[in-house]
Amino acid sequence: MNVEVWLSPAAVSPAERDHAHVAVVIDVLRATTVATTALSAGAKSIQTCRTVEEALQIKQAAQGQPPLLCGERECRPIDGFDFGNSPSEYSPAGVGDRDLVMTTTNGTRAIDEASDCDVMMLACFANVSAVAQRIIADMPDDGLLRLVCAGTNGAVTAEDVLMAGALLAVCHKKLSDTTRFYDGPLNLINDSGGIALAAWQHCISHDKVVDAESLAVRLSLTQGGKNLIAAGYEGDLVDCGSIDVFDTVPTRRDGNRFVAG
Amino acid sequence: MNVEVWLSPAAVSPAERDHAHVAVVIDVLRATTVATTALSAGAKSIQTCRTVEEALQIKQAAQGQPPLLCGERECRPIDGFDFGNSPSEYSPAGVGDRDLVMTTTNGTRAIDEASDCDVMMLACFANVSAVAQRIIADMPDDGLLRLVCAGTNGAVTAEDVLMAGALLAVCHKKLSDTTRFYDGPLNLINDSGGIALAAWQHCISHDKVVDAESLAVRLSLTQGGKNLIAAGYEGDLVDCGSIDVFDTVPTRRDGNRFVAG
Repeated sequence: MNVEVWLSPAAVSPAERDHAHVAVVIDVLRATTVATTALSAGAKSIQTCRTVEEALQIKQAAQGQPPLLCGERECRPIDGFDFGNSPSEYSPAGVGDRDLVMTTTNGTRAIDEASDCDVMMLACFANVSAVAQRIIADMPDDGLLRLVCAGTNGAVTAEDVLMAGALLAVCHKKLSDTTRFYDGPLNLINDSGGIALAAWQHCISHDKVVDAESLAVRLSLTQGGKNLIAAGYEGDLVDCGSIDVFDTVPTRRDGNRFVAG
Repeated sequence: MNVEVWLSPAAVSPAERDHAHVAVVIDVLRATTVATTALSAGAKSIQTCRTVEEALQIKQAAQGQPPLLCGERECRPIDGFDFGNSPSEYSPAGVGDRDLVMTTTNGTRAIDEASDCDVMMLACFANVSAVAQRIIADMPDDGLLRLVCAGTNGAVTAEDVLMAGALLAVCHKKLSDTTRFYDGPLNLINDSGGIALAAWQHCISHDKVVDAESLAVRLSLTQGGKNLIAAGYEGDLVDCGSIDVFDTVPTRRDGNRFVAG
């Protein structure tokens, strides 16, 4: 399959904006980790939107049980919202069988930027193998897979690039019995794919990332990690660095409404 | 010193556009390699500009011996220009003691985008150690060094990212006696720096890049390398992969006029 990586929604040329069959949006710290956690905790759906006003309007227009509002601005909970952006807030008791509306600084924006695709999924370390499995199941041989790193306010951030590289590595492992990547089943059609893969392989071999704990340490050195620590959310790094704890793949249905896939 | 990397001029946030003390522009394939080669061959100066029309106007307005026009569009020489964009064209007999005017698709654009700096230098594999030496000589302890990868038509390309990583590695080696990078003399203030460094270290350890020949092979796999091969300029990859063959550092003087530094 052909694979293209966006290191951030800004870091792409017009030629890298062709229609994708599958787009996978990655905002490890924390939007896509939260979405995966919330749907795993039994939330019925998560609708994403760009602004606080939009979220409030969606709630006001809802019929029946109103949706719960979730998200952050500058890492912190939004006044009047039900939940912030820490995965640990999302329990079955809190969000089970409820519809959620989420707005975050970077993740929901990346979803909009990458909207030109047939299938959109949300990925994080917590569901990396499940996403790889779904990509392989859904993707025709000549289809285009696009991995979209959300980044932070337009800057490329390492936590999302590492996750894109990890997802490429897992896809390769599921499809090939060789460690050689360049002549394998994934055809990296832009250089950003190789750069993301190198970043992840470097992370494993040099930074000795082997488990959630060592990944959390590595995440603490990234731009997103530093921002979270500065805002007092260091504890979220362990949740966001937990690998393959969920089988849930948030998958877009109508509009920007995601359900467990 | 504080170091910031732009993986391409598009791949940066507004926060990454503060004034830099030194900006180093990197367009390995081929603008900065050509500029370094031409000044090493004795050219007096190279003025860069964005358009073919601008280059022709500069020539027309010149007093005394007219400048030579150099550059490319879609990898190929420009009608009516004296030289194309292959390093091998630039010999002492051809450009010695002459002023040059250069326009290329990505390199000269990156120079404009990164213009907010006190000192601008051009770097490539052919002068990597000389550039590192000059950065260290010029940079105050609290100064900001920015490495700018030119990329291709807005896309991030691996050849420039690898070179940025190589330059970081050489700077580190000149300033430190430890292999540990993260607590060393270079303070990487955005994540793109770590990503570039990982790409280069991966290139050395996994792709076995140790000399010009193995680097040329690696460059042939990059977006810029593929474009050059498609246009019939595969031979340039060896010249552009030659490491430390020149001590020349193209350095901006007035306007966008570069001289040997």
